[in-house]
Amino acid sequence: MSLTIALDAMGGDGAPEIVVDGADLARVRHPNVSFIFYGDEARLAPLVAAHSKLAAISTIQHTDIVVSGEEKPSRALRKGRGSSMGLAIDAVKKGDAQGVVSAGNTGALMAMAKLALRTLPGISRPAIATMVPTDKSECVMLDLGANIQCDERNLVEFAIMGEVFSRTVLGLAKPTIALLNVGEEDMKGHESVRQAAATLRDIDLPIEFIGFVEGDAVWSGAADVVVTDGFTGNVALKTAEGIVKMYSTFLRNAYKSSPLAMLGYFFSRRALNKMRAKLDPRRYNGAMLVGLNGIVIKSHGGTDAFGFSHAVGVAVDMIEGEFNERISEEFDHIGSFGVPTQNVASS
Amino acid sequence: MSLTIALDAMGGDGAPEIVVDGADLARVRHPNVSFIFYGDEARLAPLVAAHSKLAAISTIQHTDIVVSGEEKPSRALRKGRGSSMGLAIDAVKKGDAQGVVSAGNTGALMAMAKLALRTLPGISRPAIATMVPTDKSECVMLDLGANIQCDERNLVEFAIMGEVFSRTVLGLAKPTIALLNVGEEDMKGHESVRQAAATLRDIDLPIEFIGFVEGDAVWSGAADVVVTDGFTGNVALKTAEGIVKMYSTFLRNAYKSSPLAMLGYFFSRRALNKMRAKLDPRRYNGAMLVGLNGIVIKSHGGTDAFGFSHAVGVAVDMIEGEFNERISEEFDHIGSFGVPTQNVASS
Repeated sequence: MSLTIALDAMGGDGAPEIVVDGADLARVRHPNVSFIFYGDEARLAPLVAAHSKLAAISTIQHTDIVVSGEEKPSRALRKGRGSSMGLAIDAVKKGDAQGVVSAGNTGALMAMAKLALRTLPGISRPAIATMVPTDKSECVMLDLGANIQCDERNLVEFAIMGEVFSRTVLGLAKPTIALLNVGEEDMKGHESVRQAAATLRDIDLPIEFIGFVEGDAVWSGAADVVVTDGFTGNVALKTAEGIVKMYSTFLRNAYKSSPLAMLGYFFSRRALNKMRAKLDPRRYNGAMLVGLNGIVIKSHGGTDAFGFSHAVGVAVDMIEGEFNERISEEFDHIGSFGVPTQNVASS
Repeated sequence: MSLTIALDAMGGDGAPEIVVDGADLARVRHPNVSFIFYGDEARLAPLVAAHSKLAAISTIQHTDIVVSGEEKPSRALRKGRGSSMGLAIDAVKKGDAQGVVSAGNTGALMAMAKLALRTLPGISRPAIATMVPTDKSECVMLDLGANIQCDERNLVEFAIMGEVFSRTVLGLAKPTIALLNVGEEDMKGHESVRQAAATLRDIDLPIEFIGFVEGDAVWSGAADVVVTDGFTGNVALKTAEGIVKMYSTFLRNAYKSSPLAMLGYFFSRRALNKMRAKLDPRRYNGAMLVGLNGIVIKSHGGTDAFGFSHAVGVAVDMIEGEFNERISEEFDHIGSFGVPTQNVASS
């Protein structure tokens, strides 16, 4: 299956260089993919031309307009239509591309994608999902910040989307789903979390819901999909990033603390580099804006070409896994969930 | 100043052994402290007698009743009065001890302490606080699970209590206070968080409020006190624990992966052990139930004697720092905070 990915070539700290270099890395792993770069043609043309194989599968669509990293979503909606981000999203809407990747402003990307692409039928709110490493393998976590307040219905939708992702894109036969909470007992947590748990136990879908997990269990691989509201998810993910960074700093300082320790590092460095690669945030780059009528991937703004290529890979995997088609199939049964199909809290 | 600490000798996985051994370790560091052990005298007497110096400063108060780790707070309130936990709390209420330490059930401890000791004047809800390591030094975080839902008023109270702790117990001249949020901009996050920020900017107390911090900034030492609701705080703290455990597992596996890596470990192990000691959760053991009219410390249920001795140390520091007296002084000015003194959401 040949695919086209629309790239916001001007989003992120290292744009447009890392976007072009990242696309070139992704090209090697995904030879069936071609690219449309949206952005400043004068800057993009020589960068793309420098990679002859990439140039052969790429087109450039010029725009001067860029949504800045600090732009408020509301303002991006007003003035962002003709921006590199807006045009890349429109390419998916018009069918010129099957997915879009941007390392730009998350809030603007979500707002513009929601307006242009709309949510899939039956879904009240899209969410941001990502893969995280665990002791055992990996886990899908959502929402990570799109929805600061979530009700029961939102959490149930996130659970189903996470399950579909895990099954179709990651290929797990029977992924386990859990809700993040402050304890494992039924009575624990917010009302929305408790109600979502009751619904997930009852609904007539083949979902392997295992109940509540606490913050530490996420990283020991207690579930394949961990569902939470966007506030908690954002704090948890950033906490995880912060701790990895702190631990790495402590480790580096430990090795530097004596000549003997440095010698030890010299002998162990191959094994340590392997471990570092496993925890490399670039390998987990590519947050998925799930629930939209189109594949939209947010790359970390500070990533490099290697990280950006991973985000492109996530888009390719979701398109090839027919993620949105599977989601739509699941949500055709939405009426039988035992929760109201239309929710007052959603907008 | 000579002090007496009441110990719930039957709470936690390793009780009563680790409680007695932990008290003996704490005795060395705090020679001005004596202990009252509450629990099964037949088991406690020989354990205490085995440490002659500890025996000289200890008394045992017998009870057969133990609040189990699974007990619901409501049930603990009904049948826990005569338990080792209940009697130890009562000792503080009656003035027989200046503080209580328990490694038992957190929910039961909070519920029983709240009923017996009441909150300090002006405080609507107590919170659970703890110290966490950062890149730079340490940080106080609260709430960690006592209050699943928090309004503006609760968060402001937590901020003031955290500030007082940092200043009086840790001795920081001008501790910085931040609210945990999903971004640094004013418009980010829940309404309660945004309102609390506005109040903390305005109140007439010498508080060094620096605004919002994200989950990763906690661990880079962005603030001396980080305030959040109990749901988010609990998830963040457990996430941190989970990541440290995962990282340690990866590190151990890396060292075991080849003879060369093992040799490297051999050379570096002194430095690595120092680093491990810095991250040792036992060093941060002793969560403070702040806002109560008495010093109440919750030890981790799975800790050992070393960890328990740290929890005792936290109690001693808070008593000697006159934490509750300072809190009361601050809250005498509560009327000038610009927030209602009585809150409908509090109970």
